[in-house]
Amino acid sequence: MSTATWVEGAAGSLFDVDNLPWGVFSRPGEDPRVGVRIGDRVLDLAPVAAAEMLDVHHVFQESSLNALMAEGRAVRTSVRRWLTGLLTDETERDLVEPHLVPLADVTMHLAIEVADYVDFYASLDHASNVGRIFRPDQEPLLPNWRHLPVGYHGRSGTVVASGTPVVRPCGQRKAPTEDTPTYGPSRRLDIEAELGFVVGTPTAMGDRVEVDAFADHVFGVVGLNDWSARDIQAWEYVPLGPFLGKSFATSISQWVTPVEALDAAWVDLPGQDPRPLDYLSPDTARGLDIDVEIELNGEVVSRPPYRSMYWSPAQMLAHITVNGASLRTGDLYGSGTISGPDRDQRGSFLELSWGGTEPFAGGHTFLEDGDEVVLRYTAPGTSGGRIALGEVTGRIEPAR
Amino acid sequence: MSTATWVEGAAGSLFDVDNLPWGVFSRPGEDPRVGVRIGDRVLDLAPVAAAEMLDVHHVFQESSLNALMAEGRAVRTSVRRWLTGLLTDETERDLVEPHLVPLADVTMHLAIEVADYVDFYASLDHASNVGRIFRPDQEPLLPNWRHLPVGYHGRSGTVVASGTPVVRPCGQRKAPTEDTPTYGPSRRLDIEAELGFVVGTPTAMGDRVEVDAFADHVFGVVGLNDWSARDIQAWEYVPLGPFLGKSFATSISQWVTPVEALDAAWVDLPGQDPRPLDYLSPDTARGLDIDVEIELNGEVVSRPPYRSMYWSPAQMLAHITVNGASLRTGDLYGSGTISGPDRDQRGSFLELSWGGTEPFAGGHTFLEDGDEVVLRYTAPGTSGGRIALGEVTGRIEPAR
Repeated sequence: MSTATWVEGAAGSLFDVDNLPWGVFSRPGEDPRVGVRIGDRVLDLAPVAAAEMLDVHHVFQESSLNALMAEGRAVRTSVRRWLTGLLTDETERDLVEPHLVPLADVTMHLAIEVADYVDFYASLDHASNVGRIFRPDQEPLLPNWRHLPVGYHGRSGTVVASGTPVVRPCGQRKAPTEDTPTYGPSRRLDIEAELGFVVGTPTAMGDRVEVDAFADHVFGVVGLNDWSARDIQAWEYVPLGPFLGKSFATSISQWVTPVEALDAAWVDLPGQDPRPLDYLSPDTARGLDIDVEIELNGEVVSRPPYRSMYWSPAQMLAHITVNGASLRTGDLYGSGTISGPDRDQRGSFLELSWGGTEPFAGGHTFLEDGDEVVLRYTAPGTSGGRIALGEVTGRIEPAR
Repeated sequence: MSTATWVEGAAGSLFDVDNLPWGVFSRPGEDPRVGVRIGDRVLDLAPVAAAEMLDVHHVFQESSLNALMAEGRAVRTSVRRWLTGLLTDETERDLVEPHLVPLADVTMHLAIEVADYVDFYASLDHASNVGRIFRPDQEPLLPNWRHLPVGYHGRSGTVVASGTPVVRPCGQRKAPTEDTPTYGPSRRLDIEAELGFVVGTPTAMGDRVEVDAFADHVFGVVGLNDWSARDIQAWEYVPLGPFLGKSFATSISQWVTPVEALDAAWVDLPGQDPRPLDYLSPDTARGLDIDVEIELNGEVVSRPPYRSMYWSPAQMLAHITVNGASLRTGDLYGSGTISGPDRDQRGSFLELSWGGTEPFAGGHTFLEDGDEVVLRYTAPGTSGGRIALGEVTGRIEPAR
């Protein structure tokens, strides 16, 4: 239980002192550097840390969180304790307040240098829906799905910060009714509402990360929209998986929520049957109770519950490294689309419109030019209220 | 036609002055920096470039080629002209010779910081063989294969330099005859003999690279071994493609051959039917006449011809970017396994042993602990002889 913050408007808000997400900001004419959010302000950490002679003060001068993230869990948690003191102790106010910048006065940037980006497929409801839509005559889940978190590598270089416009991609697509493929703008542009997990502490090749070592390696959590061109994807994806149907853009929130802020959000998984192999530690893996909200042009169209996800974030990390693949600071992995069992809990337009056959939200099937999507995430905070994770927004621009 | 080099032993060798591949080397106790190979020596460029007041001399002090590669095509070709002058003009000998270090005295390092790694599947013979082995009752090629270069993203963080030992990966695998998956070391560890193409000049999101702009963006070519655990891959790969079956290690040559050294190696493609869509410029795309040799424990077991590849390197690059995905300096894309039409031209053990059913090379099917594989590549040089591309070696260590 933390003491109340002295920062005006922050106490009781979704960005109270039990949240404190990290980001990279700049003021006009200045270089981007590291900040932390409290209420509607960003704390410019570099001068405060220098004045307080924090030994890691140099990491706050960087244009990404990677140097801070590479410091590891002990530094991350001790910096968090120090920040909590600064923001709750009235005697620190004179030092700190001059460095609290209104969010309206800053530009936010992509907070991390993404190393490898992996995307999973961890929602039972999403995988089942996709199976029913694409293979209506077959068992919706493929044989491997309940045995391992199915995943693949995506394109790191096109991970962008929330707010970046998304240009409708062009590419090759062939509808089942067409004889040959054609080239043109995607006609089935979609979202995937996901969470992303950002690795801070790296590993060497050959090392495996156990499920219970999740917080030793993962620095924080971002909102993530894995934009998807379903027509391009459907034509290209056999046998090597999604490629250009995904690689044009992946948006992540400007703010990275430290895993410590989610201490009150861990819940039991819904249940795994059959029991996964031991390296996936089925007895200790836990889920996250995070509420997601998908807004299309100002209207909430779905509320996927993250707590319904089948595979846990720690199991996904154990799986990534079970073959000895190393981790780097800045590695990012997505949960896959978050869909709950109910119709208004689906995390993609593919599912909300059931493959384009059931328009929703006033006639929508897939994304139209000019559409704006906002993903919002909240979770129980450690002080009894709720915290917000970083939101993810994007507007569709016409194909070029 | 260049003048002969004064460097002893280099003229007429596979590393004559028409080759000049780039690498990153270090001498004992010194930091890695950029060098160029001539004969059996590496030219330590930083002091020579500084003495000659080359305006880009700083890029040779770096521990990767990325800064040099980012300078773009004009700088790359002008540096190559300058180097050719240094190494052929006897009057430069006194300046240059003290900085020629015998290869035996240096350690070579991973030459590039890999941004995104994409792997293609561009050999018709390889894709057909894999189809016949895995789906014997069906058409070997999937419907999309002749319409686009099928590819996917791999793991950048586990791209390693030739010579790095490869630890047999563990993971989850299930043979068709087994009821449930088990965990353990891969029993079907394989190679894939490929070429890799390294991007120097980046693009912005939204830009596309035309087929005829290949050399404006690609800096050079590496040998590449895409180590593959076939049993892990076979169980995991539906529907999102290869993941842990590939992500444990990908080896690339220590030397990066500049595209200019391959000017004499371009040949017509074997032919594309049906005609691909216009963005793949079927009339202008060309292949590369590069001979590949696969050596297993000292014995040559296959000689795949790169000239038999269906999709051209420039078409692959155009495909990567057709959806507006940006390129970064250090992006690497692999050709996919190079297999020719004949049995002794197959580029993987999967094909050489026909799915493990036809042992080759004295009883081999897949890789055994202690096996050493060397991939060698040669091409026509611009001076009438042949040049060698960087070789790729790796020895299998037991699972941990």
